[in-house]
Amino acid sequence: MSSKYEALKQECFEANIALNNLGLVIYTFGNVSAVDRDNGAFAIKPSGVPYEKLKPEDIVILDYDNTIIEGSMRPSSDTKTHAYLYKHWEHIGGIAHTHATYSVAWAQAQKDIPIFGTTHADHLTKDIPCAEPMRDDLIEGNYEHNTGIQILDCFKDRNLSPEVVEMVLLGNHGPFAWGKTAAKAVYNSKVLETVAQMAYLTLQINPEAPRLKDSLIKKHYERKHGKNAYYGQ
Amino acid sequence: MSSKYEALKQECFEANIALNNLGLVIYTFGNVSAVDRDNGAFAIKPSGVPYEKLKPEDIVILDYDNTIIEGSMRPSSDTKTHAYLYKHWEHIGGIAHTHATYSVAWAQAQKDIPIFGTTHADHLTKDIPCAEPMRDDLIEGNYEHNTGIQILDCFKDRNLSPEVVEMVLLGNHGPFAWGKTAAKAVYNSKVLETVAQMAYLTLQINPEAPRLKDSLIKKHYERKHGKNAYYGQ
Amino acid sequence: MSSKYEALKQECFEANIALNNLGLVIYTFGNVSAVDRDNGAFAIKPSGVPYEKLKPEDIVILDYDNTIIEGSMRPSSDTKTHAYLYKHWEHIGGIAHTHATYSVAWAQAQKDIPIFGTTHADHLTKDIPCAEPMRDDLIEGNYEHNTGIQILDCFKDRNLSPEVVEMVLLGNHGPFAWGKTAAKAVYNSKVLETVAQMAYLTLQINPEAPRLKDSLIKKHYERKHGKNAYYGQ
Amino acid sequence: MSSKYEALKQECFEANIALNNLGLVIYTFGNVSAVDRDNGAFAIKPSGVPYEKLKPEDIVILDYDNTIIEGSMRPSSDTKTHAYLYKHWEHIGGIAHTHATYSVAWAQAQKDIPIFGTTHADHLTKDIPCAEPMRDDLIEGNYEHNTGIQILDCFKDRNLSPEVVEMVLLGNHGPFAWGKTAAKAVYNSKVLETVAQMAYLTLQINPEAPRLKDSLIKKHYERKHGKNAYYGQ
Repeated sequence: MSSKYEALKQECFEANIALNNLGLVIYTFGNVSAVDRDNGAFAIKPSGVPYEKLKPEDIVILDYDNTIIEGSMRPSSDTKTHAYLYKHWEHIGGIAHTHATYSVAWAQAQKDIPIFGTTHADHLTKDIPCAEPMRDDLIEGNYEHNTGIQILDCFKDRNLSPEVVEMVLLGNHGPFAWGKTAAKAVYNSKVLETVAQMAYLTLQINPEAPRLKDSLIKKHYERKHGKNAYYGQ
Repeated sequence: MSSKYEALKQECFEANIALNNLGLVIYTFGNVSAVDRDNGAFAIKPSGVPYEKLKPEDIVILDYDNTIIEGSMRPSSDTKTHAYLYKHWEHIGGIAHTHATYSVAWAQAQKDIPIFGTTHADHLTKDIPCAEPMRDDLIEGNYEHNTGIQILDCFKDRNLSPEVVEMVLLGNHGPFAWGKTAAKAVYNSKVLETVAQMAYLTLQINPEAPRLKDSLIKKHYERKHGKNAYYGQ
Repeated sequence: MSSKYEALKQECFEANIALNNLGLVIYTFGNVSAVDRDNGAFAIKPSGVPYEKLKPEDIVILDYDNTIIEGSMRPSSDTKTHAYLYKHWEHIGGIAHTHATYSVAWAQAQKDIPIFGTTHADHLTKDIPCAEPMRDDLIEGNYEHNTGIQILDCFKDRNLSPEVVEMVLLGNHGPFAWGKTAAKAVYNSKVLETVAQMAYLTLQINPEAPRLKDSLIKKHYERKHGKNAYYGQ
Repeated sequence: MSSKYEALKQECFEANIALNNLGLVIYTFGNVSAVDRDNGAFAIKPSGVPYEKLKPEDIVILDYDNTIIEGSMRPSSDTKTHAYLYKHWEHIGGIAHTHATYSVAWAQAQKDIPIFGTTHADHLTKDIPCAEPMRDDLIEGNYEHNTGIQILDCFKDRNLSPEVVEMVLLGNHGPFAWGKTAAKAVYNSKVLETVAQMAYLTLQINPEAPRLKDSLIKKHYERKHGKNAYYGQ
């Protein structure tokens, strides 16, 4: 008995496995989801399952209000955050959450990651935002749902677009990244971890290191993402 | 001629191999034990044997007073510490000791590892304690037995429960971790090493980084370990 | 239908794969080229192709004025920098560009890498230069062509020879390295990354660490590269 | 036509390969030798040969005055240092030299590695000495021979025994380690690199970290190396 979500489950499965292969997670840490906009549903990793044991049929399908459509396992404990982001950001196709080392270190330091170089500007034009830790009353409420609100509030306060800035740090917690596909969300998680390590080292070598200047930010972002982009095939 | 400890030896063997595969030890450093509460006996790695050459039948079986029950090899030089912990902490099922890099660095720095984020709070609600280096007269006495006393004293002084805090740093030495099984003790050793690296980086990025606030500590610990836990299957 | 550039494409392909195997790049970052001086042409990685999918026949052949001679794919976005260097530095045979972590950190810190030890002096006698970020009007112009100019200007200003110093950092960007062959350019990229990490750690341990003294610089460089060199076969 | 040095060449070959497998060297960096005291000869890696291409028959045999006994390749450029140490330290059986990252960083920082913990004390009771950079007139003379003198002078000045302290850092250069066999010299190189990283991290976490106290130094060294040692089989 096949499901109309077979391909979505497979996409989600492969993205979760990639997260593990890229060294961004250990044990059962982290989770990736993928969305099917036509059916208003998304696929996500089941909670607490080691990547080594994960199978495509374990992937859980839910709607944007967290009702399970398919799957016998409990979905990731972070599911409500994914659902909230899919509901409110209609253009994203996949989301990844990790506890990758350097990304978490910046989140725990409660610091935005400054844009120091072209590796960063090849992917986004802004400092990578670190959202403030959540208010106590929100933590005690619907925590994972409120994590979604926290991310959107951060982007609203700073006037950021989720199509330009495809990643965020949650203060004291860790990174979320997203993109047009689940694979792109995983890619952005890896880029974030790389940029986080480079920025850390940059400040160790030169605590007065200047931010990248606007002309270089613009040049590198535009050549990859602008109207006249000439990067890639 | 089979032994009633075959399964225990196999569990202990696999946990020791996992320690090596996780990059927590080099050469013959480290050791893991597993306990059989029904028979009042525990299994431990033989002393000085490289992980590559270790076989299940090399594992040594002892009682809580360090009398060898089975095995032709000399048990780990840290055996008396394991025995002491099993004798006094009746609920633990496995113990792991490593010289993992970041854990040792904090132990050598003689600093508790502050709880900076949710990766930490997913596993315990307290700073990871660093026990003071042992008194000279105890070092010259029954050293490994006294290491057990040192760990229990540290937990008593700080009013910590070994069921909530499943890890400790010994000042100038390194980490011990434990859990319901030997596999869980190894898991906790890896978590400790990961948290130790994250905390180190956090302070490098922001020497004024605040501890995680109580509401987030409680939320993350409870969702994984509380009465209404919803993490895992 | 064979091409007279088959061997050149293969050399370029293998050097790009080596860049990936040495851990100097992730995803599609980085690029290596190899030159055929007899035919006034060079081979370079196509833009945005993952190393795992790269095939020798994907390699693009161009002349020093960036006209494509062979190949159906778009060449690396950094192609004009390679062309400029080949045109003006007649003795180099290969060029590699990476975003390797420690090299980028020094570039982002806008600091030359001081010569602290013999690992450095075995390969070059000077601090590894970090070129200043480009002027805004040059960035807005023919950027990758001007990157070539920027590198040559840096070498002219500092009176450096590209045959002795086979590497440079571009401020806020990352490293370029070159050599007699594409394989040597990759080798120099790996040496640069290693020396960059060692120099970073040296300053962390001792912020007052002195530069290597001239007699040791000369000795180590000469025994490997001098008239009476006695290193190698 | 077999040689009486077949076994020695094989031992030397395997130790060199181990150096590479342990991540202590890249490319052609580093070299290991093994001595045959009965025949007054030692085996050493040929100069500039990549570890991937090294074969047992490439190993060169020399006497303590650097005369080649067997082998068609040029021996390591550091051969005279090995010869000098074998000639003057009659109890050592193997020597390893690397440019391992953390060991080199301490050498470039021109700092002894303080004994901060039991990982260090399990192997030696002293700070790991960093010999001062060589005098200019000695550098210009018989450099590698004088490197041997430099090491012995350092041990004499500090009243150290090469049987207790089996490793040294050469200021601005890197580590040499030795032991009863070539395999033990490689083991000591890995221990040194591990201890170097731990000491670096310790000082980053706590710049005021105290040295390990004498009672713990003695206890850990004695339980592994003393008359009543009880570590190992």
